[in-house]
Amino acid sequence: MATASRAGTRLDLYRDLARQLRVDSIRCSTAAGSGHPTSSLSAADLMAVLLAGHLRYDYANADDPANDHLIFSKGHASPLVYAMFRAAGAITDEELLTFRKLGSRLEGHPTPLLPWVDVATGSLGQGLPIGVGIALAGKRPLAAPYHVWILVGDSETAEGSIWEAFDHGGHEGLSNLTAILDINRLGQRGPTELQWDTAAYAARIRAFGWDAIVIDGHDLAAVDDALGRARGSERPTAIVAKTVKGKGVSFLEDKEGWHGKALDKDQAAQALKELGAERARTFDVAKPPRWMPPAFKRTPPHLATYGEPVATRKAYGEAIAALGAAREDVVALDAEVSNSTHAEDFKKTAPDRFFEMYIAEQQMVAAAVGMQVVGLVPFASTFAAFFTRAYDFIRMAAISRANIRLSGSHAGVSIGEDGPS
Amino acid sequence: MATASRAGTRLDLYRDLARQLRVDSIRCSTAAGSGHPTSSLSAADLMAVLLAGHLRYDYANADDPANDHLIFSKGHASPLVYAMFRAAGAITDEELLTFRKLGSRLEGHPTPLLPWVDVATGSLGQGLPIGVGIALAGKRPLAAPYHVWILVGDSETAEGSIWEAFDHGGHEGLSNLTAILDINRLGQRGPTELQWDTAAYAARIRAFGWDAIVIDGHDLAAVDDALGRARGSERPTAIVAKTVKGKGVSFLEDKEGWHGKALDKDQAAQALKELGAERARTFDVAKPPRWMPPAFKRTPPHLATYGEPVATRKAYGEAIAALGAAREDVVALDAEVSNSTHAEDFKKTAPDRFFEMYIAEQQMVAAAVGMQVVGLVPFASTFAAFFTRAYDFIRMAAISRANIRLSGSHAGVSIGEDGPS
Repeated sequence: MATASRAGTRLDLYRDLARQLRVDSIRCSTAAGSGHPTSSLSAADLMAVLLAGHLRYDYANADDPANDHLIFSKGHASPLVYAMFRAAGAITDEELLTFRKLGSRLEGHPTPLLPWVDVATGSLGQGLPIGVGIALAGKRPLAAPYHVWILVGDSETAEGSIWEAFDHGGHEGLSNLTAILDINRLGQRGPTELQWDTAAYAARIRAFGWDAIVIDGHDLAAVDDALGRARGSERPTAIVAKTVKGKGVSFLEDKEGWHGKALDKDQAAQALKELGAERARTFDVAKPPRWMPPAFKRTPPHLATYGEPVATRKAYGEAIAALGAAREDVVALDAEVSNSTHAEDFKKTAPDRFFEMYIAEQQMVAAAVGMQVVGLVPFASTFAAFFTRAYDFIRMAAISRANIRLSGSHAGVSIGEDGPS
Repeated sequence: MATASRAGTRLDLYRDLARQLRVDSIRCSTAAGSGHPTSSLSAADLMAVLLAGHLRYDYANADDPANDHLIFSKGHASPLVYAMFRAAGAITDEELLTFRKLGSRLEGHPTPLLPWVDVATGSLGQGLPIGVGIALAGKRPLAAPYHVWILVGDSETAEGSIWEAFDHGGHEGLSNLTAILDINRLGQRGPTELQWDTAAYAARIRAFGWDAIVIDGHDLAAVDDALGRARGSERPTAIVAKTVKGKGVSFLEDKEGWHGKALDKDQAAQALKELGAERARTFDVAKPPRWMPPAFKRTPPHLATYGEPVATRKAYGEAIAALGAAREDVVALDAEVSNSTHAEDFKKTAPDRFFEMYIAEQQMVAAAVGMQVVGLVPFASTFAAFFTRAYDFIRMAAISRANIRLSGSHAGVSIGEDGPS
């Protein structure tokens, strides 16, 4: 009885929070006159259970290195993430209602202007590969206690970069990484490719080396169980949650034509009535364990000086190897050409801080972005032409003000006999 | 007995051709002093059986619209594709030996300077998504008899774009498309992520809706059987072929450090001795069936004139809809935002020539490139910022001299409330 009662209390708490997140997602987007409330409503139950039951995050100390990481890869569900910040007491209701207004920190898509946001998202397919970088850093150089949670939209799984992330996460066995897939069936212009075929999603993800847990994303007990299993798993886990876009509001549920549209005032009033708006409150979020990152050696590097002209890539390899020897916070990533870019020099010096990203430039740049989130100093290299594969990731990295170093070799007008490709 | 004898003859033919392809791959790269002979040797058996037993291609009439299509997604195996052209009688031995020389059509990576090459490859992960476009065009507007064969390297399966192609090929049920995966275990700098785990490759590919046939890529009878099944399959098929890099030459087989290196003259002499160089000859390649594409209506479009200013995307939608009504060779592709780019206007006019590519910009641009290979006139649209996801595909499309039209909406300094992402 006691257990059942505690479980009941816990589920009641989740239900209250989920309702508040829905209400606030609608309120702030209606106040803005734009935004993505229906994409927020589908994931509200998932995020309520995460925030109140599983996330370990000190919202008063966003810089705590032990904090979990939560990234909305589907950044357009920003009303939901801002509603979470409000529920956690990080922002006020007044600020919540500045959403999308000129000068507000609460932009249409989340950016690190907010201390609780690691990276800018909105351009789809980027949050999960960045999460791979944070999880990699947590596993290897940092040995950190944090867990990385990524909310992934179903539409964005059409992006190849998502599969680079599943591939890499599986290959590296990132047990500290959980992808929460919000399978709400509807994209911007209509049904997604796989709609509610959660078995197809799960089969693909498992084939890439992850655990996959298929649940009803509105069954709070099932969400609770899945999130608990995900944190405890020995492999990266995807929670494949079947959800309903616009869930909780009769005239929005599973309806086409509502993507990226705010409710008008009358519609919002009707929605809040259906949801049963109660007085908003602050919810407790578990604090992370006490933990500090290793005290990395940071000494001045012994850089070579050259009397004769030297190939830039040779000098690059020697320089990052020297940096790697002098500074333990420096990491190097390469896209399967380290023998050409000379990043292999770093690998010889600091093999535990060298990351082979294979031929996946989007994932490589995203991993670098993720690693700098947790204070590492990443150098990423490939042939210059191939960095354009990650063009949009580099653009978004700039919006994130990410502190990364990209080194493209074999640049210039022509590389000769190999031809223009 | 007669059957066994015929099969024996057939396998002898394949063996002879495979030997010649290996010999010529080594000869031309050694003459050039650079190139990728070992990446060619691993796929020589696969390509010998394809060329002599399954491809339907009139090398004297590269413009025959009924010709099959063969693309080396692993374009660095150019010595092999040029050796195939020589074996088919398309180029002379003299020209073969101009490989990688200034002024030669035989560049380091294949380009459409050669009439038998559809598109430039070399930047990895592009041939398969382009093949999806050719197969889509063959299936829908053209109802063509051709089959599309793509030689895919194992290293390049780390590129997300390959999974966009598997995703899209499976979704569209492209039974006229076969991916031949050359799983030779070694990339440029060392082992690939999955090495010889052909079961893992097959599981991933099957999860994306393809048939997968796992074979020993040096067992000529198995290759023959797999290629036959692939052409006859009702679904897109991947032949997952376990191969040995450098196969056929003792000091190259499965050896690291040989990627992208030509043999010197002594090494080449030794290799040719091992292979048993015989007098080169021309091999018969099956001709395609007689077939001509539909006689598409091509009338001048009735384009609207505007007295008042009009949003460019609205005008775009109306213009391509008018074009689609007037010209049956015009096709439109969109990356899941057709209600914003107004490409949906085209869909209403010509639904059978509208291609929903979902949020997969690389695959969308690649499909457009593939469709123009077979004479269609593609218009592809998404938000301008997201075309950068396909930056390298657009760069390669230019090298291919591809005739495509890309329309990016929502461009400019800022798009306002949605924020910078």
